[in-house]
Amino acid sequence: MQEKSEVNTDIPNSSKEDFWFTEYGPTNTSISLRVKYKLFEKETPYQKIEIFDSYDYGRVMALDGFIMLTEKDEFIYHEMISHVPLFTHPEPKYILVIGGGDGGAVREILKHKSVEKVELVEIDEEVVNASKIYFPQIASCLEDKRVEIKFQDGVEFIKSKKGVYDIVLIDSPDPIGPAIGLFEEDFYKNAFFSLNDSGILVAQSESPFVFPDLIKRVYSIFKKYFPIVYFYLANVPTYASGVISFILGSKKFDPLKNFDPERVRGFDASFRYYNEKVHLASFALPNFFTELLK
Amino acid sequence: MQEKSEVNTDIPNSSKEDFWFTEYGPTNTSISLRVKYKLFEKETPYQKIEIFDSYDYGRVMALDGFIMLTEKDEFIYHEMISHVPLFTHPEPKYILVIGGGDGGAVREILKHKSVEKVELVEIDEEVVNASKIYFPQIASCLEDKRVEIKFQDGVEFIKSKKGVYDIVLIDSPDPIGPAIGLFEEDFYKNAFFSLNDSGILVAQSESPFVFPDLIKRVYSIFKKYFPIVYFYLANVPTYASGVISFILGSKKFDPLKNFDPERVRGFDASFRYYNEKVHLASFALPNFFTELLK
Repeated sequence: MQEKSEVNTDIPNSSKEDFWFTEYGPTNTSISLRVKYKLFEKETPYQKIEIFDSYDYGRVMALDGFIMLTEKDEFIYHEMISHVPLFTHPEPKYILVIGGGDGGAVREILKHKSVEKVELVEIDEEVVNASKIYFPQIASCLEDKRVEIKFQDGVEFIKSKKGVYDIVLIDSPDPIGPAIGLFEEDFYKNAFFSLNDSGILVAQSESPFVFPDLIKRVYSIFKKYFPIVYFYLANVPTYASGVISFILGSKKFDPLKNFDPERVRGFDASFRYYNEKVHLASFALPNFFTELLK
Repeated sequence: MQEKSEVNTDIPNSSKEDFWFTEYGPTNTSISLRVKYKLFEKETPYQKIEIFDSYDYGRVMALDGFIMLTEKDEFIYHEMISHVPLFTHPEPKYILVIGGGDGGAVREILKHKSVEKVELVEIDEEVVNASKIYFPQIASCLEDKRVEIKFQDGVEFIKSKKGVYDIVLIDSPDPIGPAIGLFEEDFYKNAFFSLNDSGILVAQSESPFVFPDLIKRVYSIFKKYFPIVYFYLANVPTYASGVISFILGSKKFDPLKNFDPERVRGFDASFRYYNEKVHLASFALPNFFTELLK
């Protein structure tokens, strides 16, 4: 990383001083990463994008001060948002990703040979541009011919789509700032209708320690539309409280009952977090989480 | 909590100023909790004990600057270090806990009616004294007639015990300072010999993100002595990287093959994290963890 940082010393906000980046969340708890250099900073019409080189987690992208991904642990979130639904669906072909301009979810989706087309709807073109420069190992997948990128508001985009997708992933940042509409009932309802008859919707639904009320609310909305609704969990060190939940709504396929471990074991691409045991285990919710849903 | 803090304003180091307590770990990543009051501070012969009242996590105990427990999330660690081995063993009667002077593990162990005796070996009497005052809901279990507390070095204590315990729990702080001997081969070997022929040893083995080399080393030691060795995981928000691993060594009973979910479902005490699904799921290791063990 050292030489790359050197290359970037002509970027206006880069700095050779050591400093700590602190994420002050919506709560009275924060995580800090000691940083080598700031590589990039830009105020877009939607948010402030910052990219750092950190000691422990490699490069880090923050949006409006919230850590969105780090080189060292991004695989966890991206594998879990993608492979849990893609291995639940028997033959996922047509996928929509809303948010996720870094390309991490798309990279994982493209490991599935059944996939014919991935649409990525990202509101902020600068997230994609910066990711291609600073996270090429993540964002280079966006050049794949199966991928189509649309720089639009996902909330608006999804309104005109009816019955088309096998899988929709909502890869949103925290429910603060431009992403707030991605946690509203109208949006989830439209996402439901954008799916075909056997479609699956997965949305990141934050940490049960940080946003318990959001989890309750999202659950009650999903239950209105989907016959099959589950939460599942993954441990992401650089997200507040070290855990992230995902909500999965499915019209037909059950992620536990219709899951075939053999398909994962025989898969011709590798994972660093996900495997057939982790798939099943991620649905085992601690009692305090289940209590939230009552 | 407010009125309790008022009560304690006569403690020398208490303060009414708002401030943040930051845990600077062995890495370049830190967690900070915004704090209402400092309730207690004492340099003992072994370590510095601090107790705070925090906004998000209630009361917090830190030893030498490391968060040991918080009121809000201590149940996770204490349930997982205890119930996984106690529900693996068909009839645990005689238990040894090394460290854990707060009483959290003992509280969970005492929920099992088969348990006849719990020995707690804590090197620092002040941890127990402070816990009784500031964490009575945790430490009051130490008054139970089945509990015997010994203020001794666990490393020395265990040398004279041969073939007696059903279960030994090593509830140690981080491998820095007075606890360093609790991560050495001689200690684990002596713990092995302190167990009877069907005994189980569980030790907290840190986070795979923070101490990967410790996990490798501890695994190679356990494999020398125990025919059955597993790691399992729990998400603890206030521990570095949000996850803690435990290593379980067993002479006879397998925590997956000999586990009876019905025994958990029919249990006459309640849990906030642990359940029969969480028990099994906690053994599903992500690929990067399994790679560490090769």
